[in-house]
Amino acid sequence: MKIIIVGATGTLGKKVTAALQGQHQIITAGSKSGDLQVDIISTESIEAFYKKTGKFDALVSVTGSGHFGPLNTMTPNDFKKGIDSKLMGQVNLVLIGQHYINPKGSFTLTSGILSNDPVLYGANLSTVNGALNSFVIAAAIGLENDVRINAISPGVVEDSPGYFDAFPGHIPVTMDRVVAGYLRSVLGAGTGQVVEIF
Amino acid sequence: MKIIIVGATGTLGKKVTAALQGQHQIITAGSKSGDLQVDIISTESIEAFYKKTGKFDALVSVTGSGHFGPLNTMTPNDFKKGIDSKLMGQVNLVLIGQHYINPKGSFTLTSGILSNDPVLYGANLSTVNGALNSFVIAAAIGLENDVRINAISPGVVEDSPGYFDAFPGHIPVTMDRVVAGYLRSVLGAGTGQVVEIF
Repeated sequence: MKIIIVGATGTLGKKVTAALQGQHQIITAGSKSGDLQVDIISTESIEAFYKKTGKFDALVSVTGSGHFGPLNTMTPNDFKKGIDSKLMGQVNLVLIGQHYINPKGSFTLTSGILSNDPVLYGANLSTVNGALNSFVIAAAIGLENDVRINAISPGVVEDSPGYFDAFPGHIPVTMDRVVAGYLRSVLGAGTGQVVEIF
Repeated sequence: MKIIIVGATGTLGKKVTAALQGQHQIITAGSKSGDLQVDIISTESIEAFYKKTGKFDALVSVTGSGHFGPLNTMTPNDFKKGIDSKLMGQVNLVLIGQHYINPKGSFTLTSGILSNDPVLYGANLSTVNGALNSFVIAAAIGLENDVRINAISPGVVEDSPGYFDAFPGHIPVTMDRVVAGYLRSVLGAGTGQVVEIF
């Protein structure tokens, strides 16, 4: 399979890439790193990116950021950051990518536990993750040519100790379990699934 | 209570308004109708709106639109319409309104069944509704001074027959049940709830 991994050098991305490399043709991508560069906030950049990748079989998105902070000082502009990046960045990879993906291909997006298990400063990322989960269940019935789409929703991961204090009482999930979720989506047959790795 | 109803002349809004009128001080609002006008897509308009309403006890939002259409022709710009209107319009009513609401006040937003029960053309509204549901559970733990927030998530309603064909096999919900959901949020004590009226 020809697999594009956007965010391939991130905490999750590098382990997902390692798990798929060797047996597949991998195109790594990032805002500044990887085989090809793409700025997911720009639809023009995404269009130009797919023109360079050409047809592909799977896209894995492990990218996108959001705002993290107290609600009482959160502004509409703060909130917009996560909407433009982690939400619309990933949605637009699908809306535009649906015209480049091969039949029976798959999209795998990344949401996260905050969609249904909030933490104090996480209103923006809860919103973004909930949006992504609902997007995949709806896009799954709208995509044509047997193209699949799923979201991987990890808890706080063991490789990100910097987040542990913000997730009190959360038991960090192992990277092996998280990587397995991505493999299930890319190599399996499910669609419209939110794969919870909590 | 001093209750602001944004979208008071819409299909849902007028029945919610009727149910609350008489026993409370109601301020109706809309983009073109009502006691005061507000364009929820503009943060400047929302700021100016709250300066006119002054302090209040409850805000009910029954407003916001999204894009409805096939995924294979859906563009990033189509998608952005629902994000800017039904999602960010309602989120920004809260982010800005939290600085005007009285202690023990409440916000009641409107999401909808598509968050977890998609229909063929509804990817944008599924996303928006899922986002709103996750926003309220997260904002509920971030709001201060005992301010509450809930989302009402109705199925297709009996007063909107124009939508019935797009929701095959859905049994339209009665307006009485939907209105009761809003009353539960405004007059009850719950917070962080997604009140499903399916």
